[in-house]
Amino acid sequence: MSDTLEVTERSRLRRLHERGHFDRETINAILDAQPMCSVGYIMDGKPHVTPTMQWREGNHVYWHGSSASRALRNSNGADVCLSVAILDGMVLARSGMHHSLNTRSVTLFGKAFKVEDPQEKLEKLGNFVNSLYPGRYETLRPDHAQDLKATMVLGMEIAEGSAKVRTGAPGDEEADYALPIWAGVIPVHMQVGEPIPDPRNLDGVDIPDHVTNFRIG
Amino acid sequence: MSDTLEVTERSRLRRLHERGHFDRETINAILDAQPMCSVGYIMDGKPHVTPTMQWREGNHVYWHGSSASRALRNSNGADVCLSVAILDGMVLARSGMHHSLNTRSVTLFGKAFKVEDPQEKLEKLGNFVNSLYPGRYETLRPDHAQDLKATMVLGMEIAEGSAKVRTGAPGDEEADYALPIWAGVIPVHMQVGEPIPDPRNLDGVDIPDHVTNFRIG
Repeated sequence: MSDTLEVTERSRLRRLHERGHFDRETINAILDAQPMCSVGYIMDGKPHVTPTMQWREGNHVYWHGSSASRALRNSNGADVCLSVAILDGMVLARSGMHHSLNTRSVTLFGKAFKVEDPQEKLEKLGNFVNSLYPGRYETLRPDHAQDLKATMVLGMEIAEGSAKVRTGAPGDEEADYALPIWAGVIPVHMQVGEPIPDPRNLDGVDIPDHVTNFRIG
Repeated sequence: MSDTLEVTERSRLRRLHERGHFDRETINAILDAQPMCSVGYIMDGKPHVTPTMQWREGNHVYWHGSSASRALRNSNGADVCLSVAILDGMVLARSGMHHSLNTRSVTLFGKAFKVEDPQEKLEKLGNFVNSLYPGRYETLRPDHAQDLKATMVLGMEIAEGSAKVRTGAPGDEEADYALPIWAGVIPVHMQVGEPIPDPRNLDGVDIPDHVTNFRIG
């Protein structure tokens, strides 16, 4: 039960030029698999964590919220930490100590910046919708100017951080394998259920592929 | 697409005596449903977020890690923020703006304390295992003194924080309901798969109920 997020494979990137292809691919794959993230920031001298959604565009990660959010306004130009963690399984060992989790996680550090240009912001928000539901943004009621005004988009370069991945069976102490204790892994994954149409959908509106094909985690 | 974690029901507790029964029940239910959490803290003047596991005992929440962890040692007596977020569904609206998530989340603020007493620490770690797998701890190889030494347990009083819950259909602008756009909810939940026994399990060791009954989220 040492560190719950046991590291069996770890890629740490400090600066762009030190980064290996594998690291970047691992990090991107985790970010792309799970839009839910936790953003950490300092407000009034204290640590805060906000669960929100992130989307990746090349070497940048973005998140958004209300323009009225003090946390978001406060984060512009400030240090933030963005964390994504995907639980893949519960690892049960023969001692409490070696219980663990199979997880994929990414932690990114950097300074957040606000996307100021309204046209760029609109494009980012469209990319966000389409990152979840490919092609959906173009089918929606176009954003009002006031929607855009009410929304703030923050971004951060993917330049410092780490990915951790643990997979596979428990790792017990050799002597403990002789004990008659059930050990193993309980797999866990994000299951997508049957879509529930809004009761106010118009007759004849078909369910789009970007809904039926939706996957997460 | 204003705030991704749209608030339809919100309980905010500032101090114990201001807290309603409902608030505490909502918070406890969310903490108990999802052990995965994100702990935010400040290290070297910068925000950090670590994904880890939490377990609740009455009015306290606990997490643990390696005694060698600078982050954990640094958190003892310091301000932390503990966040749990459970994704229940993707909410697709008729405009980008009103896309949202169905979620249950809790954010707690407070000062972390280290569980110093070895006997109390041992008890907490047993409670942690049993919070996930009822009765399992008593079936395991007892913790070595060195396991205990290598592990740090931190706790925090549940005294300041908030819970947010969003459920149900999208909330579109009235005029937008006339548009022929598919809107609705894609439910998401944590699915527990078929347990995978460790290939080194001894013959005749049955799978315990605490494994077959395991649920999360």
